[in-house]
Amino acid sequence: MLKTYYHPEPMTYDGTQLRSLWTYRHFHIMGDSIVTFRGPCKVSLDKMVDLEDVLVGDSIYSAEMLHFIIEHFDMDLEKTVYRQRLFMAMIKEDLEEVCGGALIRRGDDLYWREKKLSVSIATLSPVSTLIHVGLNLRTEGTPVPTASLEQIGEKDPEGFARRLMNQYAAEVADIYLARCKVRGVE
Amino acid sequence: MLKTYYHPEPMTYDGTQLRSLWTYRHFHIMGDSIVTFRGPCKVSLDKMVDLEDVLVGDSIYSAEMLHFIIEHFDMDLEKTVYRQRLFMAMIKEDLEEVCGGALIRRGDDLYWREKKLSVSIATLSPVSTLIHVGLNLRTEGTPVPTASLEQIGEKDPEGFARRLMNQYAAEVADIYLARCKVRGVE
Amino acid sequence: MLKTYYHPEPMTYDGTQLRSLWTYRHFHIMGDSIVTFRGPCKVSLDKMVDLEDVLVGDSIYSAEMLHFIIEHFDMDLEKTVYRQRLFMAMIKEDLEEVCGGALIRRGDDLYWREKKLSVSIATLSPVSTLIHVGLNLRTEGTPVPTASLEQIGEKDPEGFARRLMNQYAAEVADIYLARCKVRGVE
Amino acid sequence: MLKTYYHPEPMTYDGTQLRSLWTYRHFHIMGDSIVTFRGPCKVSLDKMVDLEDVLVGDSIYSAEMLHFIIEHFDMDLEKTVYRQRLFMAMIKEDLEEVCGGALIRRGDDLYWREKKLSVSIATLSPVSTLIHVGLNLRTEGTPVPTASLEQIGEKDPEGFARRLMNQYAAEVADIYLARCKVRGVE
Amino acid sequence: MLKTYYHPEPMTYDGTQLRSLWTYRHFHIMGDSIVTFRGPCKVSLDKMVDLEDVLVGDSIYSAEMLHFIIEHFDMDLEKTVYRQRLFMAMIKEDLEEVCGGALIRRGDDLYWREKKLSVSIATLSPVSTLIHVGLNLRTEGTPVPTASLEQIGEKDPEGFARRLMNQYAAEVADIYLARCKVRGVE
Amino acid sequence: MLKTYYHPEPMTYDGTQLRSLWTYRHFHIMGDSIVTFRGPCKVSLDKMVDLEDVLVGDSIYSAEMLHFIIEHFDMDLEKTVYRQRLFMAMIKEDLEEVCGGALIRRGDDLYWREKKLSVSIATLSPVSTLIHVGLNLRTEGTPVPTASLEQIGEKDPEGFARRLMNQYAAEVADIYLARCKVRGVE
Repeated sequence: MLKTYYHPEPMTYDGTQLRSLWTYRHFHIMGDSIVTFRGPCKVSLDKMVDLEDVLVGDSIYSAEMLHFIIEHFDMDLEKTVYRQRLFMAMIKEDLEEVCGGALIRRGDDLYWREKKLSVSIATLSPVSTLIHVGLNLRTEGTPVPTASLEQIGEKDPEGFARRLMNQYAAEVADIYLARCKVRGVE
Repeated sequence: MLKTYYHPEPMTYDGTQLRSLWTYRHFHIMGDSIVTFRGPCKVSLDKMVDLEDVLVGDSIYSAEMLHFIIEHFDMDLEKTVYRQRLFMAMIKEDLEEVCGGALIRRGDDLYWREKKLSVSIATLSPVSTLIHVGLNLRTEGTPVPTASLEQIGEKDPEGFARRLMNQYAAEVADIYLARCKVRGVE
Repeated sequence: MLKTYYHPEPMTYDGTQLRSLWTYRHFHIMGDSIVTFRGPCKVSLDKMVDLEDVLVGDSIYSAEMLHFIIEHFDMDLEKTVYRQRLFMAMIKEDLEEVCGGALIRRGDDLYWREKKLSVSIATLSPVSTLIHVGLNLRTEGTPVPTASLEQIGEKDPEGFARRLMNQYAAEVADIYLARCKVRGVE
Repeated sequence: MLKTYYHPEPMTYDGTQLRSLWTYRHFHIMGDSIVTFRGPCKVSLDKMVDLEDVLVGDSIYSAEMLHFIIEHFDMDLEKTVYRQRLFMAMIKEDLEEVCGGALIRRGDDLYWREKKLSVSIATLSPVSTLIHVGLNLRTEGTPVPTASLEQIGEKDPEGFARRLMNQYAAEVADIYLARCKVRGVE
Repeated sequence: MLKTYYHPEPMTYDGTQLRSLWTYRHFHIMGDSIVTFRGPCKVSLDKMVDLEDVLVGDSIYSAEMLHFIIEHFDMDLEKTVYRQRLFMAMIKEDLEEVCGGALIRRGDDLYWREKKLSVSIATLSPVSTLIHVGLNLRTEGTPVPTASLEQIGEKDPEGFARRLMNQYAAEVADIYLARCKVRGVE
Repeated sequence: MLKTYYHPEPMTYDGTQLRSLWTYRHFHIMGDSIVTFRGPCKVSLDKMVDLEDVLVGDSIYSAEMLHFIIEHFDMDLEKTVYRQRLFMAMIKEDLEEVCGGALIRRGDDLYWREKKLSVSIATLSPVSTLIHVGLNLRTEGTPVPTASLEQIGEKDPEGFARRLMNQYAAEVADIYLARCKVRGVE
């Protein structure tokens, strides 16, 4: 079972968290996991892993975000991109109740009235695959127009984060079981 | 690129369509594909691949459904369950415009006001993995309370199917490219 | 976590138990599992999966055995043969206390004073890999000289089986975690 | 066939030997291999790959050990942890003759009368998976109570090492063949 | 090391040879292998595995062919198609000496002056991947214009077959070693 | 579909081009690709990835070569060595028209009258597998006797490169489809 952890202390996401075994090193959580914390997001060019962003010179900045770090100990990056897309869809599904369907997912991005709610990336390390998702808690100073969780109606980031982590853990477990209850066909 | 095909003739889905190379045999479409057709859904017990349904004695029946058959030529069933879940989320995302957010996804099922809109299964064959998704076009005679595409506001099943197939093909291609533009991390 | 189950009713092992989802169909246990039961062992030639036995015309028979059926929902048969060998080594390790080191493992076979204690095979199904291990509870009528659990000092097959299943579940979980706590090297 | 090599010159194991192609670079042995040498064991914190040891501040030291370095050119770390566990069980099996069953395996550790005989780790490199096993030849100065091969009755480390390497090569080859002689089941 | 075997008795290739463990069942050769024999080639529609041939109603017939059956005990069909293409290129390379470069490879087919020399298919079984290659020894009665080994200058099919099997075994071994002597890059 | 690109500006191949995402970083080509350029070849010892060359102290130098860089976004190095060998066979097949069959392929090397036409290596990066092939355009100063494309009759390196890249892209696509049109066998 994928482990979940809400870290109560604020931390800056600067890209060094997207590293194998970061969760184990810092929180002593071993195995597949999803961890959440709050804090600024400042990723310098040399820490960015999405070369598309690097090529166009995009910077990644937010004064405060809700960060999710997901680690799966298998090496199939394409599968982890599927996991990332599904996770983004799950964020949207959860937030619909508060924002009434105004969220749009495009690939791994979420938009609210054409303002960007999220940043996200999936990559692989020598021993695992990793996902980072950041959702804006504040919107001032971002390089593109952004929306925050509060603006779209979610006033309780911690409760939201805990709920979402549990949903993700349950969905991942359910997907594995779905694979264990079908017979093959011809 | 995953190929798409809307088959204009009605066909009954009886489980024999969930078979390797069915799309190639019947429509001469080679490679990864998504195909749609309309028709009844009647799966007898010996054709059911979800043993959970078999164990509880569930039957699968609908007078008319919009059927999607997806085939991916790799052998990772867990990855294909991720694809299936993402596809269900995409159906929900597309239908939101017409039904205003009332759709709920639970695993691989879609519900509208607690009525079931869909059936779905993912499995593997000796050479590929396969997904079937059926969306009700009519609701009379189903073994559980069901909703139809029309009831939730989608009046043009063919247009919807074509749009969804294109979205799925684009998302699958985009996911592969997302895997091709990141550097690894430590 | 791999699930364990001791089935209290006697059953004949005739090879049909070495089949995908047999554990789910019969005991409603979903996912990776190890199951134990007692009963005769009679595998006819057409049910044998080890072609080496088929080629030399070996028959498999025991009046009563303690049977283990293990199912892992991945498709790497070589890995499952490693699991099988390790499981045989674990049986030996556990029995040492009662028999004082007289057991010898050769590949997937266990011998006690040159008499065969066990039969075992690993194979794959369309959706999983499978292991069968049988340990003699009685020795009369076997095609080769055999030893029984009782002869080597284990008087409580059920207690032994439950202990071994727990050890295997713990070892499998521990192996996965061992894979999740090391950094890669150059 | 996995290649075996006993290196007659003493060398210090300091963690830099657990590196891809170390065996090829130093001994010109190409392909899957197991190599043995004798020498001290001193691994500084920055060379340790087991983060559990790093987190608890364990140091690894022995005045003299018999070292085994195993390299398999596939990328499945979990499979290589199975190989490691099986190899530890094989060490135990071999030493039983001299020490009469007093050895206990717990995961990847071997104990003799509650004293530690071994250290071991499995990890992966960019092109292979690797195992290190060290067995104490001397026990003074170790950070925890240890036993040596000599204490448990093995007076000929080189003969033991050569025998064990041959057994491992044979077992690995036999496991592959075991995978090549079974038919699949339903 | 892939095993080679030239079977001296004539046999008809009717498609039933393209089956897992056929080589082990008939010749007691265990593990990855390439086997050659001579005989007619008559594959009825229900035995054909290339559905493209089935769809266009192609029949496969030759009065006498030199047949190669290759079995690799891994499950990656795409990799085995690469092996097949390389094997076809190797046949061409070998025959150049006798026919002076007039052979053309198109995918998995070999042509000599626009006449077809070969038939070939690659597929997978539940436990392995398999390749069949047939080279015409006689040309009368074939459904398309064909060339024979003799026509293109190879008068000694057995010597050619033995040489080619050895070359294939050597190339496969060399490819594995090529994978074991490079360091990874960034 | 694998993308092809002929880069018209001369560049020195010094080993730093054999790096993940080099093609994307420099030419903004995303996904599996083959790229060609002309220029000197000078690889210093610390950039060489073939440790066999390093061990024997081989240097790699050519005043001018036609370079191919191939990147596949999967992680199976053995499969990519098969791709490399097939690519070398394709170069040979293409050049036969101009040089009349005098080219010999030995593993991943091409020879013309015992002079070396090519250098090549395949390796893996953290996110992909990579191939470099260099074909001599000039022969002076090389550490071993070499032949150039011009000497063997190919006067138009760019046309040759473009043709070969298209052939490779077509063969790779065809191989995938070959995997998608066969049924499995028993």
